[in-house]
Amino acid sequence: MKEFDLIGRYFSAGGHKRRDVVIGIGDDCAVTMVPENQQLAVTTDTLVADVHFLRDAPAKSVAYKAVAANLSDLAAMGAEPAWISLSLSLPAVEETWLSDFVSGLYELTQYYSVQLIGGDTVKGPMAMTITAQGFIPPGSELTRSGAKPGDWVYVSGTLGDAGAGLDILQGKLDVSGEARDVLINRHYFPTPRVAVGTAMRRIASSCIDVSDGVISDLKHILSASGCGANIHVDRLPLSRALTSAVTQEEAIEYALSAGDDYELLFTVSEEQRGSLETSIASSNVKVTCIGQLTGHSDKLMLYKNDEKYEPKQSSGYEHTF
Amino acid sequence: MKEFDLIGRYFSAGGHKRRDVVIGIGDDCAVTMVPENQQLAVTTDTLVADVHFLRDAPAKSVAYKAVAANLSDLAAMGAEPAWISLSLSLPAVEETWLSDFVSGLYELTQYYSVQLIGGDTVKGPMAMTITAQGFIPPGSELTRSGAKPGDWVYVSGTLGDAGAGLDILQGKLDVSGEARDVLINRHYFPTPRVAVGTAMRRIASSCIDVSDGVISDLKHILSASGCGANIHVDRLPLSRALTSAVTQEEAIEYALSAGDDYELLFTVSEEQRGSLETSIASSNVKVTCIGQLTGHSDKLMLYKNDEKYEPKQSSGYEHTF
Repeated sequence: MKEFDLIGRYFSAGGHKRRDVVIGIGDDCAVTMVPENQQLAVTTDTLVADVHFLRDAPAKSVAYKAVAANLSDLAAMGAEPAWISLSLSLPAVEETWLSDFVSGLYELTQYYSVQLIGGDTVKGPMAMTITAQGFIPPGSELTRSGAKPGDWVYVSGTLGDAGAGLDILQGKLDVSGEARDVLINRHYFPTPRVAVGTAMRRIASSCIDVSDGVISDLKHILSASGCGANIHVDRLPLSRALTSAVTQEEAIEYALSAGDDYELLFTVSEEQRGSLETSIASSNVKVTCIGQLTGHSDKLMLYKNDEKYEPKQSSGYEHTF
Repeated sequence: MKEFDLIGRYFSAGGHKRRDVVIGIGDDCAVTMVPENQQLAVTTDTLVADVHFLRDAPAKSVAYKAVAANLSDLAAMGAEPAWISLSLSLPAVEETWLSDFVSGLYELTQYYSVQLIGGDTVKGPMAMTITAQGFIPPGSELTRSGAKPGDWVYVSGTLGDAGAGLDILQGKLDVSGEARDVLINRHYFPTPRVAVGTAMRRIASSCIDVSDGVISDLKHILSASGCGANIHVDRLPLSRALTSAVTQEEAIEYALSAGDDYELLFTVSEEQRGSLETSIASSNVKVTCIGQLTGHSDKLMLYKNDEKYEPKQSSGYEHTF
């Protein structure tokens, strides 16, 4: 099958259509319009089979996760998602796999009103690169570098579920019943926190999404902002599924070091805490204060019940060479 | 080496800086500004080692070609390039290779005033995906679908050089001296026809870049525009290097069917031929009329000295599954 047919058959037909897309899939470029008084946020993420996702994962979840990871980066910037481009490398055309992949892709793009505007399909090892774009009003972007000593550290949702889900799938963790399904689902179908990100515009002083574990990602904020942090591991938000499946200590380790939760980690000044509560009320997502920033540059201190805590793994998950 | 260090060391420091980039490499997203009254053109291309480029090609040329292929897509739309995002997948970090790659990348981005605004580096098979973005005034975009019967078919530069260069590198063609260097250089370092593309705004009725061979790419225009074409193969623009290296018939075959020339193939109505000559004069690139469109939908006829011509290969180079 020719690659052009492949693109045509699976990607051209469906998916959400936006009025700001002048030319979509099928020409040398897509042509789009950015609204007046909006900046453009751009992010690119690559997922390689057996590095970033399991090769035998359901195709629907592979697409879902690839899109979610990119929308999560937009959310971490406070941007509202608009368009994605997809480059898909596959060793061979398997029609069922492709059809499931497209259904996962379009499920998420439909939900977030995002249009697939183009891309490329090539024969090669299983991998995909998505470039996602969104809008953000000038001066409203949430960076990693705006945090200040004294700011409070918050995280959305619950942490550690996706990591436990991955361990279940790889046979490293034995969990049964509903908790098993919940944790595996959190690994396969992460939720990009788009509503939380846009709600945090002009409220959070810094923001990042938790893709490599909360310790690792918090360190990026600390480094970019020149701050330290005191984090209380007993305040980490844990799901009932996770706490029913593992010991409290194991749950804390998953929450600190496991990747792919795609929750938002952000900081809020004392003055903005009132606005945070008002703003987050409408988003229907729980946020939890897990600690406070200090002036000790790059110094991350962990506490459990106010005593110093040493994590088993000192840094988060990172794809290394 | 951690991937974050890799990004930091090789890509964050250098390269062209633009005033419309609010936040560049290093946060969850880049943040940019599209000028008022400009549309955004977006294109994505993936190059896989040993499919789209030779694995042992000089790293500088790999980067150069990957960027050029994307800028060529912008040029084919009439867009002025602005930013690129790069996702780079490598099996291992080789410092010399990376440093050469970055130098090739920055050479081209500097020349075209393009800023690298972000991307990703992952461990995996050697491959790269670039998303390039540029600007185009509303209504000025050059599509594949605007051609009409009677329009003249033009091509920029010369055709077939890159294909001959590839055959030389693969030992399928024996050429020595200056012609050898010229042809290999055209394969390794293609020139995106950015100036031609912007000069053709509101003049060309359709446009595409020649990445899969002129026959294959012309067919995309014919199919999208519902036209046929009569092409005179004796009018195909051939370089002195190519005609000195192979027979005339072989040169025509390279020109018709070989890929990766990255010239622009476009159509111009009789009324616009005067504007074409005025406009192209300032771009310092030769354009050649190679035929005319007909009303016979999808029917491509080739002639040599006004007699019907049968090419040896009926379609252009296409990466197939």
